[in-house]
Amino acid sequence: MGKKLNIGLIGYGFMGRAHSNAYRKVNQFFDVGYQPVLKAICARNEAKVRPFAEQWGWESVETDWRKLIERKDIDAIDIGSPNNTHRDIAVAAAAAGKMVLCEKPLAMNAGEGLEMTQAVEKAGVPNMVWFNYRRVPAIALAKQLIDEGRIGRVFHYRAKYLQDWTISPELPQGGAGLWRLDADVAGSGVTGDLLAHSIDTAIWLIGGVQKVSAMTETFIKQRAIQDEPGKVKPVKIDDACAFLARFKNGALATFESTRYARGRKNQNTFEVNGEFGSIYFDLEDAHQLQYFNHREESHVHGWRTILVTDSDHPYMKHWWVPGCVIGYEHTFINALADFLQGLESGTPVRPNFRDALETQYVCDAVLKSASTESWQTLGK
Amino acid sequence: MGKKLNIGLIGYGFMGRAHSNAYRKVNQFFDVGYQPVLKAICARNEAKVRPFAEQWGWESVETDWRKLIERKDIDAIDIGSPNNTHRDIAVAAAAAGKMVLCEKPLAMNAGEGLEMTQAVEKAGVPNMVWFNYRRVPAIALAKQLIDEGRIGRVFHYRAKYLQDWTISPELPQGGAGLWRLDADVAGSGVTGDLLAHSIDTAIWLIGGVQKVSAMTETFIKQRAIQDEPGKVKPVKIDDACAFLARFKNGALATFESTRYARGRKNQNTFEVNGEFGSIYFDLEDAHQLQYFNHREESHVHGWRTILVTDSDHPYMKHWWVPGCVIGYEHTFINALADFLQGLESGTPVRPNFRDALETQYVCDAVLKSASTESWQTLGK
Amino acid sequence: MGKKLNIGLIGYGFMGRAHSNAYRKVNQFFDVGYQPVLKAICARNEAKVRPFAEQWGWESVETDWRKLIERKDIDAIDIGSPNNTHRDIAVAAAAAGKMVLCEKPLAMNAGEGLEMTQAVEKAGVPNMVWFNYRRVPAIALAKQLIDEGRIGRVFHYRAKYLQDWTISPELPQGGAGLWRLDADVAGSGVTGDLLAHSIDTAIWLIGGVQKVSAMTETFIKQRAIQDEPGKVKPVKIDDACAFLARFKNGALATFESTRYARGRKNQNTFEVNGEFGSIYFDLEDAHQLQYFNHREESHVHGWRTILVTDSDHPYMKHWWVPGCVIGYEHTFINALADFLQGLESGTPVRPNFRDALETQYVCDAVLKSASTESWQTLGK
Amino acid sequence: MGKKLNIGLIGYGFMGRAHSNAYRKVNQFFDVGYQPVLKAICARNEAKVRPFAEQWGWESVETDWRKLIERKDIDAIDIGSPNNTHRDIAVAAAAAGKMVLCEKPLAMNAGEGLEMTQAVEKAGVPNMVWFNYRRVPAIALAKQLIDEGRIGRVFHYRAKYLQDWTISPELPQGGAGLWRLDADVAGSGVTGDLLAHSIDTAIWLIGGVQKVSAMTETFIKQRAIQDEPGKVKPVKIDDACAFLARFKNGALATFESTRYARGRKNQNTFEVNGEFGSIYFDLEDAHQLQYFNHREESHVHGWRTILVTDSDHPYMKHWWVPGCVIGYEHTFINALADFLQGLESGTPVRPNFRDALETQYVCDAVLKSASTESWQTLGK
Repeated sequence: MGKKLNIGLIGYGFMGRAHSNAYRKVNQFFDVGYQPVLKAICARNEAKVRPFAEQWGWESVETDWRKLIERKDIDAIDIGSPNNTHRDIAVAAAAAGKMVLCEKPLAMNAGEGLEMTQAVEKAGVPNMVWFNYRRVPAIALAKQLIDEGRIGRVFHYRAKYLQDWTISPELPQGGAGLWRLDADVAGSGVTGDLLAHSIDTAIWLIGGVQKVSAMTETFIKQRAIQDEPGKVKPVKIDDACAFLARFKNGALATFESTRYARGRKNQNTFEVNGEFGSIYFDLEDAHQLQYFNHREESHVHGWRTILVTDSDHPYMKHWWVPGCVIGYEHTFINALADFLQGLESGTPVRPNFRDALETQYVCDAVLKSASTESWQTLGK
Repeated sequence: MGKKLNIGLIGYGFMGRAHSNAYRKVNQFFDVGYQPVLKAICARNEAKVRPFAEQWGWESVETDWRKLIERKDIDAIDIGSPNNTHRDIAVAAAAAGKMVLCEKPLAMNAGEGLEMTQAVEKAGVPNMVWFNYRRVPAIALAKQLIDEGRIGRVFHYRAKYLQDWTISPELPQGGAGLWRLDADVAGSGVTGDLLAHSIDTAIWLIGGVQKVSAMTETFIKQRAIQDEPGKVKPVKIDDACAFLARFKNGALATFESTRYARGRKNQNTFEVNGEFGSIYFDLEDAHQLQYFNHREESHVHGWRTILVTDSDHPYMKHWWVPGCVIGYEHTFINALADFLQGLESGTPVRPNFRDALETQYVCDAVLKSASTESWQTLGK
Repeated sequence: MGKKLNIGLIGYGFMGRAHSNAYRKVNQFFDVGYQPVLKAICARNEAKVRPFAEQWGWESVETDWRKLIERKDIDAIDIGSPNNTHRDIAVAAAAAGKMVLCEKPLAMNAGEGLEMTQAVEKAGVPNMVWFNYRRVPAIALAKQLIDEGRIGRVFHYRAKYLQDWTISPELPQGGAGLWRLDADVAGSGVTGDLLAHSIDTAIWLIGGVQKVSAMTETFIKQRAIQDEPGKVKPVKIDDACAFLARFKNGALATFESTRYARGRKNQNTFEVNGEFGSIYFDLEDAHQLQYFNHREESHVHGWRTILVTDSDHPYMKHWWVPGCVIGYEHTFINALADFLQGLESGTPVRPNFRDALETQYVCDAVLKSASTESWQTLGK
Repeated sequence: MGKKLNIGLIGYGFMGRAHSNAYRKVNQFFDVGYQPVLKAICARNEAKVRPFAEQWGWESVETDWRKLIERKDIDAIDIGSPNNTHRDIAVAAAAAGKMVLCEKPLAMNAGEGLEMTQAVEKAGVPNMVWFNYRRVPAIALAKQLIDEGRIGRVFHYRAKYLQDWTISPELPQGGAGLWRLDADVAGSGVTGDLLAHSIDTAIWLIGGVQKVSAMTETFIKQRAIQDEPGKVKPVKIDDACAFLARFKNGALATFESTRYARGRKNQNTFEVNGEFGSIYFDLEDAHQLQYFNHREESHVHGWRTILVTDSDHPYMKHWWVPGCVIGYEHTFINALADFLQGLESGTPVRPNFRDALETQYVCDAVLKSASTESWQTLGK
């Protein structure tokens, strides 16, 4: 089962569950040289984190992340807490020589992200950002098809990330589970939460972004505060964001995200149109990749739906048999396996902090473009 | 515009419209050596057929099909009247040396069908049965893919033809528009009306049927008589029919049809599974053909949806541009163009009466199998 | 069959066919008080227009549109010739007191469009622009669902119009069939040709546009000239155009069009996301409308595919039976029926020139936004 | 975490993995009163089972199932070994007073199944058969919709279970992983392996089967023996099986299964057509359920795709958030949770051995019908 790797995880919310599950399962499905040990779970609220620790098998509990970082028996710090905590934890963990795994978005803004990136690079510690959708087998297959030259020169990219869970004005902001609606904790709304995923995928597949023109909107102007009954405060996050972009390679792109698309639950889509073919993906049908191949006889041209469950598809040989799908949580297990494999092989996993910083620059440019109503050009 | 071909059409119902439309449009879209002339429309009810003739541009009206057949100025008799009239008209028309086009099913039963077939063959007159779905471009493309060897040995065929328009017990039987529910006029229910289509397509694509095991059901046991208020009579047609079959080439098949499949309006589907590939078609998405090609790299295997609107797809160069679909009525125009092309080229169109007779034999075997609860073997 | 209406059609290309077909078919399927007469077809090239006239049954031929307009026996002028001819013909026809039907886009630009609109309004002649997609039954159903209050406050609109037929650099520009690639004739590229459709539909469904931010691209910088062998000239049309928009009612929108989306043949889509529901349409599956209804029990929430072929769907009672689709050409017949019905009822058909002018203003703003890289605000 | 329940699992193949995973995960996701303990894994081949035990955390290993049953520290025996071992193990385990969980199909034939059912009932021990697909949330939702009266009188049921993994004649039979192709070990081919699933689901949703007419085929007549190089033996399993059926409530059904449907990987589908609505499911899109509701305004009738990921869908509140799918393995976890919940509540889980016996009777009737070419009636 390999060398033990002692994990200290911060955060026991949705991501806390997803990461805990990954640590527990990875060695049953992947033959990697490291075996994660669920050493310590950390959160401020001891009454809540104790039962979580018991349920998931974490060996110990901490309520102060600084103490967690001080512990000698921890090899890697995994940051699953809200966005406004990422910077301080990551910088301190790197300084303490710990490996750092961090949930996305990397930071509240690119300034913080740069600090974090410099910290891990200076410390020389392994680092990864959990852009888990790179580990959806169908998205990894999209990358493979592009790398195989099946698309050729790219003309167009279009990405959407649509949800509908914040339409009700009754929904409060802040507090457990709803901190994503509070700009002071989340940094931004859909731009950091959802578009960061779309941008990370786009950069991975197509390359760097040159310039953007964006608009944002906050449909519900104020909401109750979850933890302070009777009080309301202005909503400062972006409920929706759309932007035009040009990639450095000349391709055009549109990106859009919202939490007000009635009937779209987690519709993270992208389409690539190139000289020789096209690709389409929709996370709501995550087991499929659509592919159009122009280079065959024209009377059989068509968009094919690849059922990405065969053993020769990315990651799938580790799971079940053809036709048997994997689910959301597996993207974290696949990502963790890649991280461990990176440790073993000496070829560090991607996306690392530096990659996530590039996405953060785009997010910042998007928000600035929207607020100034002007095109924003990214650095070289 | 070619040589004039004088048409005498019998029947002004749903098929009367579809055929009239075909005669009027074929020369605008197909460059064929014949030009149909809408010479005479025939139906018993003069008060109803007169405005129909005016609306569609029929030059004259007849109320007795025997008189129509006697007319010297008529080249071709087109039978669009109910099933129980097909035999007498076709036999008389052939004897008079007219070309005969006949709606499907060919006859009330195979006995009648044999008489009709012998009549047209003895007379040596051009003949066609309007199994219009062979002229759906996607189905014609399916035939082409099979003929190109893309499927290889066929293991399975499965066909469905599902509708839902007779579920209400309030629906009467008989009379205009509803004669399909009266066994005395229609001969059978879904077997002759819908499965005849499925069987014709199957024989065209796969080959002859060897044996069948069937079941039928009549869900509503009696219905009012449309033309006799206050009266009811037992329903004798088959509301639903399903059968197992073995083709002569060893392939297995299932067929099913019903008018009690809630939500299925005209869902005529088939799937072919062969050694090298598979094909799927659904008439409710008639502009598409699905194709799975096994003979390419396995990681890009997938069911592709061919949008059958390009100029190199069957029939489509005669219509609009890629991405622009044609509709239901065009299958009749395509069929008519093929008939006229057959006259011109000397290679008679298919399916002719002989082909339709083969389908009729299968229908008869299916009904006998259902009534006797036994497998029935077709003749060689 | 009603009162005769003498038509003079200019242009015998793709639109010439579509319009001719509509004039020939409308009275067989719609009970309207007017009967179009195919009086004269007009085009400069007599050798080409003669056989067209014969094939489609046009009674006479003109080679100068000014003569056509002078003819006393013509009631309505239908402009199906390239965009750079619209203004002069329409203004002259209106001055001569003719009804005017005009292909889209209305004009080369809003200045011309304004002249044309003022001309028909001053003359008081019936006028219509052939934005035929309003007559796709599924799009008309979308309008109906919105008008029924099923969507509520609209948050988002997203439209795409994707094709792939100009990717090859070998394709020349200009000349018959390819004038759409020549900016001198077409005015613009996808903006006027495709996005005009998208914008017309959007305004019809959602309301007026307030402001836009756009980008355009010309991927192939020069092309051969079809009618001048050996010569090339710069391509000045927009091969692709995408823009962000805000509607006057506060909804956000994205629009995108290209002829470089490999595998998309005529993919004209839109999605509306509102408080109570959402709607999605794709012209490549024109017989379907997708609808999400939020106001029912949550465990059965889902996107439903409405098969728009029933007699209670817009236009469909005039055609065949449930499950039987209509095609591309029927949108023109439906539009013509609406035009004739408007004459009969005294409630003029929409979209008229004034409506099309509004779309033209948006197109102009889009092109200006793209060239200046700035947001453009529409007039009130 | 509840009372400990000591598990002894027999078999370490594909099902061994799926069951082991369920035992390890159930308590992290379900709040049930029992905590499974992975006490012992049993298989004949010690060299292979040892690393499996280590990887999955089984506390001990046995190589003789009789010894496993004798152990006092085992509460429940889980049979994941090939079909020809089920009877002896289950009967012995019941006699020893152990709970018994058994993989499907229950037995080699109904005779064995009856023995097993009588054994567990006589012993009064909790028992379950792993028809895991009842625990696909979408299938459980189908059951719920039917129980809510949304379908009404059922007219039709059609089930398919199509795969394509045995088309190559090079594939050997027998041995690890391929025992399903050896009739001596598996009992039958697709009938017991795949149709047993379809039949179990059908009986659960619709009710008992009255009579059947079947056909089977073995396309590849002989295959090499995996464990005996150079030897071939006749293939005795059914490669494909299709049958017609009538349910006791009068509904008609078709069932079909094969491993020769090129392009279908694990396509387990069913459709229910009833008076008020219809339902369709396809395991290759396991996160979706399609539903047609006839009882609403007709112009919005349509097949809706329910994305079965919301917290008010069966099982889903235990997993992630809306839009996040679960995978194949979760059906086993859900089933285990139901089993444990049954122990806790005193309402035993279904399907139990008695339920699985009913499916076995249908399988036997199907095989007899096919071999005798006659309809077979099930007992009352």
